[in-house]
Amino acid sequence: MRLVTYKINETDSQLGFIKEDRVINAEQLGKLKNSALPNNMLDFIDMGDEGIEKATKLINDASAEELRQCSLLLADAKLMAPIPRPRKNIIGIGLNYTEHVAESARSLDTSKDLPQQPVIFSKPPTAVTGLGGNIVHNQDLTKQLDYEVELAVIISKYGKNVPKDKAMDYVYGYTVINDVSARDCRRSGQWIVSKGQDTFAPMGPVLVTKDEIEDPHNLNLSLKLNGEERQNSNTKFMLFNINDLINDISTVFTIESGDIIATGTPAGVGAGRTPQAFMWPGDVVEATVEGIGTLVNTVVDAKEI
Amino acid sequence: MRLVTYKINETDSQLGFIKEDRVINAEQLGKLKNSALPNNMLDFIDMGDEGIEKATKLINDASAEELRQCSLLLADAKLMAPIPRPRKNIIGIGLNYTEHVAESARSLDTSKDLPQQPVIFSKPPTAVTGLGGNIVHNQDLTKQLDYEVELAVIISKYGKNVPKDKAMDYVYGYTVINDVSARDCRRSGQWIVSKGQDTFAPMGPVLVTKDEIEDPHNLNLSLKLNGEERQNSNTKFMLFNINDLINDISTVFTIESGDIIATGTPAGVGAGRTPQAFMWPGDVVEATVEGIGTLVNTVVDAKEI
Repeated sequence: MRLVTYKINETDSQLGFIKEDRVINAEQLGKLKNSALPNNMLDFIDMGDEGIEKATKLINDASAEELRQCSLLLADAKLMAPIPRPRKNIIGIGLNYTEHVAESARSLDTSKDLPQQPVIFSKPPTAVTGLGGNIVHNQDLTKQLDYEVELAVIISKYGKNVPKDKAMDYVYGYTVINDVSARDCRRSGQWIVSKGQDTFAPMGPVLVTKDEIEDPHNLNLSLKLNGEERQNSNTKFMLFNINDLINDISTVFTIESGDIIATGTPAGVGAGRTPQAFMWPGDVVEATVEGIGTLVNTVVDAKEI
Repeated sequence: MRLVTYKINETDSQLGFIKEDRVINAEQLGKLKNSALPNNMLDFIDMGDEGIEKATKLINDASAEELRQCSLLLADAKLMAPIPRPRKNIIGIGLNYTEHVAESARSLDTSKDLPQQPVIFSKPPTAVTGLGGNIVHNQDLTKQLDYEVELAVIISKYGKNVPKDKAMDYVYGYTVINDVSARDCRRSGQWIVSKGQDTFAPMGPVLVTKDEIEDPHNLNLSLKLNGEERQNSNTKFMLFNINDLINDISTVFTIESGDIIATGTPAGVGAGRTPQAFMWPGDVVEATVEGIGTLVNTVVDAKEI
């Protein structure tokens, strides 16, 4: 399924299922068919496969007229981040593509050696924004605002010490994340101020359940800044693949339903270019992962919001 | 007020108010007086001063017999962390006491220069445990398990760019945190694996609302390991005080009701001793902050749970 969170007015968000050019409202579909479905993504993820099977059956059993009644045109839906408010900080992975390790060592103060274990950091829930959301550039804090296209993995259930060969059982689905990073905001080497500022986690446009992605380790991912391609790689080049990451992270922390793992970015970031080229107000950044979609965001000046 | 979260059975937790040697159950008190009160700490914090005033009035208006009916002996209450499940990662502050900066520079790879801005990191909600909770020592991950007594500040409300002279308006109260740290688990300098493992955020025993603490910048804090004093300082020695921290953090991220800021530890950690002395299964660690209480936890081997 392709799942979205969308707004119907200023305050309420809704869970929807994309079918062709329409978004079916989960809660309304449930009411129409006398079979309750939640109205938000986290509750739906908590239902696991059962939720997906139930919703699929309700959609298949509904008449065209019923589906029309409980849906709107995708073009009319104001999409939000699929998980607008995660239950904990997003789990970020740094230095997970070889060429990005090299460019980071040249331009930042990271090691040129490949990491021996996943490098983990976090981005607070307050950093999340969705398709079309502004990336806020606070020039009092940074002059080095940078982009990072990444495949994000959504966790399906509670787990500890998950073996690599069982890791995929813990994956619910995928989305695109732009791991926006202010390179000059590291403090004693810690990345959270660099990566955790409000709006620094654009996510979306949709959450694709894992059954729709044949091989998550063979997806093109790319990023354009003002229409110009800046990053272009494939998830097969991850140093630690999704199985490795889930195994490692679940050994360190408990993983839970709704957790989000941003799996790292390939080469091509602004800090790694010669000369360096960062993002400034007015810039439009498009992050794409094959099979999921394109996340478009505009950089705005903090003083103008 | 002195607030606690406590268990009444294996699954349900309750909010309580300490009065002398008893814990008054918030929800039951509300029912008895026909004036609803929430049964969990985060909902109560969300009510702000209004919640504190309402609960205080209900307690004052209740008869001794009524209070007996809706309370139990504090000694019989199984206390949990005051906020057993924060809504985001705990915001940790590193290197915030001069002598600890010096001992860290000697024993770890941090700079000997005082930080010019607060050093921020995070600990996931899954790291939280309460009074009497085990600190789990996973010897496959660490041979350098260390303690850090800290004053934790609980945030009362949503804020951005909070000026220093308004910062105290955003404080709800205080608790004690032990910022347990596995010194050998840093990865590319990032601290989250070091500080974020399950049970690495013991917190409690109680949450004290700010009106009960005359000066949060003049509180003794100390820590004993197996009865031997290892840390002993005062919050007046913080490099960045609470006003500075709330100003800085709210400039970087939005702060929200229920956020927890662990304000940093003074000197005396195991990594800074000669020879270094870390924690091992069976060790009992007692973290005390004046006016709040003592948080006692035992280290256990991950293989034995």
